[in-house]
Order: sequence, then C-alpha cells, then structure tokens
Amino acid sequence: MAPRALDYESLNENVKKVQYAVRGELYLRASELQKEGKKIIFTNVGNPHALGQKPLSFPRQVVALCQAPFLLDDPNVGLLFPADAIAKAKHYLALTAGGLGAYSDSRGMPGVRKEVADFIERRDGYPSDPELIFLTDGASKGVMQILNTIIRGESDGVLVPVPQYPLYSAAISLFGGSLVPYYLEETENWGLDVNNLRQSVAQARYKGITVKAMVIINPGNPTGQCLSESNLREILRFCYQENLALLGDEVYQQNIYQDERPFISARKVMMGMGPPISKEVQLVSFHTVSKGYWGECGQRGGYFEMTNIPPKTVDEIYKVASVSLSPNVPAQIFMGLMVNPLKPGDISYEQFIRESKGVLESLRRRARMMTDGFNSCKNVICNFTEGAMYSFPQIQLPPKAIEAAKRAGKVPDVFYCLKLLEATGISTVPGSGFGQKDGVFHLRTTILPAEEEMPEIMDSFKKFNNEFMEQYDDRSGYSRM
Amino acid sequence: MAPRALDYESLNENVKKVQYAVRGELYLRASELQKEGKKIIFTNVGNPHALGQKPLSFPRQVVALCQAPFLLDDPNVGLLFPADAIAKAKHYLALTAGGLGAYSDSRGMPGVRKEVADFIERRDGYPSDPELIFLTDGASKGVMQILNTIIRGESDGVLVPVPQYPLYSAAISLFGGSLVPYYLEETENWGLDVNNLRQSVAQARYKGITVKAMVIINPGNPTGQCLSESNLREILRFCYQENLALLGDEVYQQNIYQDERPFISARKVMMGMGPPISKEVQLVSFHTVSKGYWGECGQRGGYFEMTNIPPKTVDEIYKVASVSLSPNVPAQIFMGLMVNPLKPGDISYEQFIRESKGVLESLRRRARMMTDGFNSCKNVICNFTEGAMYSFPQIQLPPKAIEAAKRAGKVPDVFYCLKLLEATGISTVPGSGFGQKDGVFHLRTTILPAEEEMPEIMDSFKKFNNEFMEQYDDRSGYSRM
Ligand SMILES: Cc1ncc(COP(=O)(O)O)c(C=O)c1O
Ligand SMILES: Cc1ncc(COP(=O)(O)O)c(C=O)c1O
Repeated sequence: MAPRALDYESLNENVKKVQYAVRGELYLRASELQKEGKKIIFTNVGNPHALGQKPLSFPRQVVALCQAPFLLDDPNVGLLFPADAIAKAKHYLALTAGGLGAYSDSRGMPGVRKEVADFIERRDGYPSDPELIFLTDGASKGVMQILNTIIRGESDGVLVPVPQYPLYSAAISLFGGSLVPYYLEETENWGLDVNNLRQSVAQARYKGITVKAMVIINPGNPTGQCLSESNLREILRFCYQENLALLGDEVYQQNIYQDERPFISARKVMMGMGPPISKEVQLVSFHTVSKGYWGECGQRGGYFEMTNIPPKTVDEIYKVASVSLSPNVPAQIFMGLMVNPLKPGDISYEQFIRESKGVLESLRRRARMMTDGFNSCKNVICNFTEGAMYSFPQIQLPPKAIEAAKRAGKVPDVFYCLKLLEATGISTVPGSGFGQKDGVFHLRTTILPAEEEMPEIMDSFKKFNNEFMEQYDDRSGYSRM
Repeated sequence: MAPRALDYESLNENVKKVQYAVRGELYLRASELQKEGKKIIFTNVGNPHALGQKPLSFPRQVVALCQAPFLLDDPNVGLLFPADAIAKAKHYLALTAGGLGAYSDSRGMPGVRKEVADFIERRDGYPSDPELIFLTDGASKGVMQILNTIIRGESDGVLVPVPQYPLYSAAISLFGGSLVPYYLEETENWGLDVNNLRQSVAQARYKGITVKAMVIINPGNPTGQCLSESNLREILRFCYQENLALLGDEVYQQNIYQDERPFISARKVMMGMGPPISKEVQLVSFHTVSKGYWGECGQRGGYFEMTNIPPKTVDEIYKVASVSLSPNVPAQIFMGLMVNPLKPGDISYEQFIRESKGVLESLRRRARMMTDGFNSCKNVICNFTEGAMYSFPQIQLPPKAIEAAKRAGKVPDVFYCLKLLEATGISTVPGSGFGQKDGVFHLRTTILPAEEEMPEIMDSFKKFNNEFMEQYDDRSGYSRM
C-alpha cells in the first residue's frame, strides 16, 4: 500500500530537518524520569516560574480584573484589588474590541502598540511608529513570521551566531532556507569579530547562497554576552555594506548582570549613526514578556518593531498575520504593562519595585554563583554570564569519555549531559544543540534554580563532574567501564 | 541599488500569494471609516464578544483566580468568587508547571489533554488518547501546523470546499501547496456530492498533483450547513479509497440551530464504520474556545486530535510545536473548562446554564431572522443557517451593476459590499473571498449582531439592497450612474 499523507515517509522534508535541542532528547528523557518519580531540576529552558519565581503582583491583578470585568461592578472589589490595578484594568479594557474574549486586530491592539512605541522612544531617544509594531504570541512567533517572509528557498541564507538559540536554526530549516554560521569567540568573552562575519558571508556566496539577513542575540543566549556599542556599530556598518537585514533578538534587554556594558538597542545605535545607515538598514527588533523580571513565559506575549521596512512589505506581513486572526489578548495587556510600568507615587509602586528588584538582584547573584561554581570544577571553564539567563560552560572531555560516548552511539556532550541527568536530576542541554566548534564541548543551563537551592545544585554538579572526569581520566583504572 | 531583503521584490513569493479576505479590502476600509467616526457593524469575522456577547462568568472567574493565585490565600476571596470557581482554579493551577507564567509542554498541559480526551470519549463513545491531542493557540494555528506537515510543494494538493473559510486557501498558499477545490451545492442546501469530489481529484491528478488530504468544515463556514451521518460516511469511504487524510474542522460543533441534523463528529462516524476504515483513514480534528457559546476568540485556545497517525509523525509534529515553546497557558485552562463543564449540583451550575443557553437560543433566533431578512430582499436568496455563525446569501447582481463594478476596477461582489459598507456601516466579506461558482455572487455576514439590533440592521440592509437593485435595474433610468 502507498504511504498515507501523514506517514513519516510522506511528510514535508523541511519539517523532518528541523532540530530543536531545547526540548530534544535530554528533555524527553528528563520528562520520563520525572514520570518515574525522580526529582528533576529543569534548567533546559529559560522558564523562571517553573523554578519557583513568583509573578509580579500588579500586572497579575490587572489581568485578573480584565478576565473578570464584572468584578469592577462589585462593591467588594477594593477588598481584593488596589485602586491603581482597578484603574489600569479599566484602561486596558477600554482598548480592547470587546474585552479579552474578542479577537483584536491581527497586529495587536492599537492602544498597546502605541504604548510600545512610547516605550521605545523613551528608551532610545528616537520616535517609533505604532504602525510598524506588531504584537505576537511570544517573540518566537515573531521571529518565525519574519524569517518566513524573508526566506524564498534553499539559496537564501541567514547569518546566525554559533552558538545560537536554536529557534533560529529550526525556523530556517522549517522554511527551507540556509543557515550561514558565524562563530562567537569563547576566549574573547563570546565577542563578535566582524572579520569572521565577512568570511562567513564570502564562503556562503561562494556556494551560491544569497545572504539576506543577519541575526544577533543581545544579550546572548546561550552565551550570556552583552554587545558593546562599538560592536553594534560595526555590525550595522557590515549589514549596510553587505545589504543584509538585521534581526535583533533583544528579549533579554532587562537581564543585565554587570555595569560596564549596559543594554543598548540596535535601533538606538543605528539611529545615532545617521544616514545612510539609519535610513537604509532594514532592522526588525524582537521583545517578549517571557524574560526580564517578568518571566511571564506561559502568557505568550511579544512584539516586533520594524525600521526601514517599506509599507508594501508591512502590508504583506500584516496579511499573513491575519490568517491566524489575532495574537492572544491577555498577553497584549501584559506587554502594555511591561512597557508602561508603575511610576513613583502610584499606590502599588513600592511593592512593584521591591518585587522586580528582588528578582533581578537575585539573578545577578545566581549568575555569579553559577559561573564560580563551574569554574571550580575539574575540566570546566566558563565565561561570566553578563546578561540573559544562561551559563554555557565548556566541558573538556577526556579522550576516553569521547570514546565511551562513541561506543554508546551518542554525541560526546549528549553523553555527558545524559549521565549528569541520571546522576543528579539536573536537566541541561548539550552544547551541540546550539552549535560549537568541532571538538569543543559545552552544556547550557539556566541560572534560574531558586537561589537557596543553588549551592546544593552546584555541589551535586561538581561531585558528578569530578567523578566523571576521574572515571575517564587517562591515568585512571576505571576508563574502560 | 539591489533590492534589500525586506523590499517587496525580495519577499517569499508564497507570502505574496496568500489571500485572506476576512481581513482584506473590506475590513481595511471599514477600519478607516471607523477611524473617521462612522459607526461600523463588524460582521466580517465570527467575533461574538466584539458585538456585545458577554463572557460566561464561571470560566472567567476561574481564569482570573489562576492569574492572581495570591487571591486564593486572601480571607476575602469568598466575597468575590464562588467556592466552585476557587476549587477549579486550584485544580488547574495544580496541573500547570508553575502557574500561568510557566511555559507548558509544547503540546499543552498533560492534565488538560486528558480532560479533552475524556470529553471526546463521552461525546463519541470511543476512547481517545491524550498523547494524540495537542493544545494550540486557537484552531487556526493547529490547522496551519498540520498543513505545513503535509505539504511538500506545489505538486501536493489539498481538497478544500468551495466556498471555504479562507484560512485553508491562505495556509495552502503560504506553504506552497495546491488547493484542489470541490464545490458545495447551493441548491442542495450546500450539501456535498461525492461525485464532484471524485471529479476534482481526477482533474487534479491529471495535472500531476498528488492529492494528499481533504478538508471538511462541519458545521460549515461560510455556508452554515451541517453534514449528515450518511454524508460523512461517504466522505470517509472516499478518503479511504483515494488515500487521503481527512482534516475535520469542527470548531462550530456546539453551534447548531435545527434538530434534524445534530452535530456528529467525523471521528465517531469513522470509528462506527469499523476496519479497515476506522484503522486506516488518517484523521485530524480541530476544535476551539473561540466559538460555541463561549466565543472566547481573544484567548486563542484550541486543540487538534489525531487518529491513525503513526508515532513517528506525532514526534515530528511535537518537535515543530516545540520551536515556539508552548501554547498560551490561560487558554489551555479555558479549553479544560470548556470540555469539562459544570455539573448539576455545582454552585455555579444554574447560572452557567442560564448564560450558555441564553447565548445559543439567541443565536438560533438570529439565524432565522437573518435568513428570513435576506430572503425578503430583491434579488437575494439565502439558505437557512443550520449551524456555525454565518449567513451566505446569494446576491443576483444585474448586468449593469456588473458593468459598473468593472468600470470601478472592482470584482462585482466587492463593489456591492463596499457600497453596502459606505451606505450602512455593515462590514461584510464578499463571496469571492471564500470562492464561488463563476458569475454567481454572495456576501458573508455573521449572525452575531445583538438580537435587539437585528431588525434595524436587516431593515437598513434591505433598504440599501433594494435601492441598489433599482439603480442598476435594466429597466431603470439610473443605470449609468
Ligand atoms: C534568545 C531568545 N529569543 C527568543 C525567545 C523566545 O521567547 P518567547 O517566545 O517566550 O517570547 C527565547 C526564549 O527562551 C530566547 O532565549
Ligand atoms: C471554520 C473555521 N475554522 C477555524 C477558525 C479559527 O478559529 P480560532 O483560530 O479562533 O480557533 C475559524 C474562525 O472563524 C473558522 O471559522
């Protein structure tokens, strides 16, 4: 019998090619172990609330009221909700097309897009146009939409950092394009060298690929680096010279754990460079409610902002967005609240600041604890997490461990991470899921486990690692196990 | 200078090919008029809350509590929320991975998928497997995911009813496949004739197209018909014979306005037919929280259920779903509440029944008012809306109106609908957006305007239509205007 439409043999080859390690073999094994009753510490994905981070109270109060607008007429509402949350709920309900149950415009509510534009203007010092801002169900969906718009086929290439967050490689595969890698320099604190970029583009062109766009992740995932202003200028100049659109993934812009290199947006740098660059380079910037001190991953709220994109293209993107009708409305309100936070004097201001500072300061301490913890382990070296939510230590696997992995039919870092998972319950992602240089191995973990659990986790990691290294040490008798 | 990556000339051709009339020219014009201060009645999309339908209280209470879980510890919570809403909120919070702010599994929360499976089993009388149910951000996203999995390229075809909900044509264009139309018979109450199907498939094959799947929309959008059990059997037999996967869009399964043909799911009919059909035909069924008496469109919640899909394919679909991490969590809870509604004896039961019955009974009356209203107009004939949320009257345009449209550079039904919009503020979608036979014209409107406004709307439609018909009447002196 002929294969049926949904038999594996018949499927879209691009679907089959997609790889997505963040929820790959390690995650699936961890889920199994969890079902069997093992305690798992999920550090495979930046999902703060899953590891105990509490939501900020104020935005949750506002969205709860928007979900139950009939409470606004209840004389007791003031017993459970502060007056500023009540006022904000009324504000956002008035922006909807009929409450949270009505589809919004496919680009998101005009009122919230205006709030996003105002935020960008305050942040960067240059005006932003709400008509060029689209709200999305998380940044992932926005990135996919833009890549789908750009990629025509195999001979269209997109420059992606290596290591990278695998959303990019996955989406490029799904849309049938070509990933053009550029390497970040581990020994340069994961910095970006424009000469590398130039080489990558030249090599791709030699293979007949039209390189159309470049992705930057700033602050970096999995690498945690923050790009300096001068680095961003070089990148923008490069994009201008090479006629590349720049996709700026800035979802971690609030997650900064050092003071030398504060976050600066690609758009601000570009506008500051003046024409022709500020008028010519096509830039799409992405943001989300999933990260920062919000961590509202499950709500699925994001936006992208377009600069120097012609109206006819904006219309096309709008049209395709319309096919799925509307981004979810509650998360649009979270986005409004995120870009338009409470101000001194608001009733809930003190609590809001206390909660958000609490999250950020603890993340900063955890970034330090983790880096130091990894660097205290045998055969592990790790750059400091300057920003974002991840640590990406290099694991120097002894030759015997690599052999053992081969015998087990596993990529060496997968082998290491699986053993780590079985021994400790720590669920990480092997560096191969993000890309790394040949023969160099990493793992990625989030810095999100609860601060009070961090010492124990790092101890248990160290114990596992040092035993593993001993087991496969050249000089050890255990090596043939 | 060479075109840049996001200039119109450079874009993905499949993106450009997409057409989506529900938010097309008419909608854009209506939005403009609204900005200018004109009162617009948006009947272009099935968006009940935007036209004043109130949300059901109980599910909103539950989700509000899940958004603000700290309320559960507040001694005053009982003043604003009934005890069963509090209990349900605790139930769903316990199913999440860390509240609404945590990404869930990419297929949705296991606990809710189990509730969906139980619902399907109760509805159909056959067990359903939660592992084969994926929660999605609305049914649209599910449909797109499955079509993306199936379509490899231009020579893969999907049978789609004409007229159809343009999600299907749009998604098939976007993924680069071929739409294979089969016509519904207006004079047979929009019934489906298997001989037509056979012809459509034969013609497509003749052109070198591999027909891989067939879409049914039951109850129909825009046509409103309900498929009978015998019709569904024929379709399933046909899919079996022709080796087609069946995609069953059943989002309107609760919206039924007559008693002769109650909703019956494709899955129930298929299971009842026994092997080989029940074991061989690959079926994917779609559902949503956007329709029924819920109308929670803005929340973006849906699911699809797969039958006879091999595990390797399910893994591929899971992998691609993982790239965007997680469907939104609040809407997953709405889905749980929808498939697992209150029972007699629950504190909120009476209110829930009153509210939901109120919505459905009013929809039934409005379906009748609209059909009758259209049939009382000159040159308009209209089948009764048996189910779903739409009326799809045929507008018999006089030759002079068709000429006038041509002179204005418009498709005739677009011309008519634009005039209707300008004259009355009623924002409909021209039949050409859904597909129709050559030379036959329709418009689609929802039956959703508030019941008390319906007489006035139908009067204003009739007045416009009859004047329009007179103006372009062969025997009228106005015809050259
Ligand atoms: C670099 C980067 N971009 C985008 C995303 C997507 O986030 P979301 O889709 O939740 O907004 C993530 C999530 O981890 C990320 O790390
Ligand atoms: C036939 C049909 N299918 C699917 C959908 C999509 O609904 P949603 O994405 O809101 O679940 C609609 C919406 O109008 C529809 O009419």
